[in-house]
Amino acid sequence: MSTTTSFFIPVQQQIHQVEELMRLQVVNHHPDLQAALDHLLSSGGKRIRPTVTLLAGRMLSADDERLVTLAAAIELLHTATLVHDDLIDGAILRRGIPTLNSHWSPGATVLTGDFLFAQAAKLASETNSIPAMKLFAQTLSTIVNGEITQLFSSRCQVNRQEYYQRIYAKTASLFEAAVCCAALISNAGPNTLESIRQFGYNIGMAFQIVDDVFDFTGDQSKLGKPVGSDLSQGLITLPAIYYFEQNFADKETQDFLAGDCLQYNENINSFVERIRSSNAIESSLVEAEGYIQNAIGCLQNFSLSPERSYLEDLTLYIKHRFV
Amino acid sequence: MSTTTSFFIPVQQQIHQVEELMRLQVVNHHPDLQAALDHLLSSGGKRIRPTVTLLAGRMLSADDERLVTLAAAIELLHTATLVHDDLIDGAILRRGIPTLNSHWSPGATVLTGDFLFAQAAKLASETNSIPAMKLFAQTLSTIVNGEITQLFSSRCQVNRQEYYQRIYAKTASLFEAAVCCAALISNAGPNTLESIRQFGYNIGMAFQIVDDVFDFTGDQSKLGKPVGSDLSQGLITLPAIYYFEQNFADKETQDFLAGDCLQYNENINSFVERIRSSNAIESSLVEAEGYIQNAIGCLQNFSLSPERSYLEDLTLYIKHRFV
Repeated sequence: MSTTTSFFIPVQQQIHQVEELMRLQVVNHHPDLQAALDHLLSSGGKRIRPTVTLLAGRMLSADDERLVTLAAAIELLHTATLVHDDLIDGAILRRGIPTLNSHWSPGATVLTGDFLFAQAAKLASETNSIPAMKLFAQTLSTIVNGEITQLFSSRCQVNRQEYYQRIYAKTASLFEAAVCCAALISNAGPNTLESIRQFGYNIGMAFQIVDDVFDFTGDQSKLGKPVGSDLSQGLITLPAIYYFEQNFADKETQDFLAGDCLQYNENINSFVERIRSSNAIESSLVEAEGYIQNAIGCLQNFSLSPERSYLEDLTLYIKHRFV
Repeated sequence: MSTTTSFFIPVQQQIHQVEELMRLQVVNHHPDLQAALDHLLSSGGKRIRPTVTLLAGRMLSADDERLVTLAAAIELLHTATLVHDDLIDGAILRRGIPTLNSHWSPGATVLTGDFLFAQAAKLASETNSIPAMKLFAQTLSTIVNGEITQLFSSRCQVNRQEYYQRIYAKTASLFEAAVCCAALISNAGPNTLESIRQFGYNIGMAFQIVDDVFDFTGDQSKLGKPVGSDLSQGLITLPAIYYFEQNFADKETQDFLAGDCLQYNENINSFVERIRSSNAIESSLVEAEGYIQNAIGCLQNFSLSPERSYLEDLTLYIKHRFV
């Protein structure tokens, strides 16, 4: 199976433009804020969302300039949600780097997130596409709704349906929006739009499942946070769901499910260890592979092109990106 | 001078539609969140921003349905900013009613604000006007930028220029956006747009100055918060600026300006009393009156119509709304 990352190369120059455009949205501020914004934008990881946006848009012959604007809007929206997420979770580190809320007041952190939301909305409006703007606003609503549901839900619940809804809202909805907005600014018809939507949905679901697996299997230095941190916060992700399903009869599982898992905190590490060494990891990866194959299938609806091949490579890479 | 509030009557039915549309954006949520949202939307005060939006739009022959959508978007944006503001200020009461942050976690409050931002952006996109959406996003950015500047600025600074910039960002920018967006969805030309922009700017500035005066002259039961609460947080508004300018030679003023006013907390009440009984109040109101007369002047650029007269009444009302 190919795990090339060569798909980053054809969009490298545009990714630089995206980063430049993002930086342009956040200049001329108070030095402390400026430093924080620069830091947020420079610790942006692999820019997978802008890359998907650019490749999908190019495959559909979207205008390059509008595509760069859209990709920057998507990535800024993503960054904004992370700022508020980390505040709400009280996270100290993200990608191994101190979060904004770890050294700033909640007020400053809230406003920095709001500012990034505002700049993201401004960029989205500069795509000059009413349907793209509508979808963008709708997606922000989906993401926030998902976070609210998560906040108000009981912790420690093993519920597949809730899990899929949560990772859709948290991750897949933005991948879906990224490729759909790219299609909308290239004036794609309804069939094209539906095919690319399904592609975005499937890579997004795969992406989050792999992320959730890595929370168990990764090592702390690469994760930039403790292993099993989801479970230790009472957040039951797919590997834990498989584990508890596969070990439903165990006394420990029964105790865990009967009580409040956050009260088992001293035992969390032993659960993390059990999940790491169980079939639950493989079962989760098989499920991610299913989404990946669905995504590849969606791409077959498009004529063969270099961009389509790059999107296939990107899709296959999702499963291996942490290896 | 007329201080009739009869201008509310011609838009009463549409204001009900605006409120209904706002409520429609926030249905089917977790019961606790739903209760909070219902509470936020029902404690909305006089709906002065939607009223201005509707009257300006009708004066310019905008489509009624789009106008209601726009007015709801403007009011939701306003509500969203209040939710985050109160969290940042640690405010316990707004309009005499407990704030969301006074009984909810910061996380839940942040997300509720984010959710209202998202729904506001969604409604703005439903006006189907690209320039209106752009202005809407730009205004969100202006408001948040103003809050960030305020957060990062030194407290207790007597600075007129900063004050005007702050109240523009905080209040006038949204009045400006409300009437400009109304003009944009009625396809107004550049001259009309500029006249109505100046109108919105001037009523917004007057509105905030009157608010700042009332923070000194109001009584706690009507304010719903302690008298002089701005000054006690180190926020120097126009009445205080006038007072300190007019009493620059006083030893107390010198001490206050030389030090950190928040350290004078026990003396704040005596300063509040002095400002209340000084010329600073009248000087501030004269300045508000100047903005009001400018706004009335802007309206003379439009042909005589019932809506123009109502907007004149609304403008005059701003100065007397608390009386």
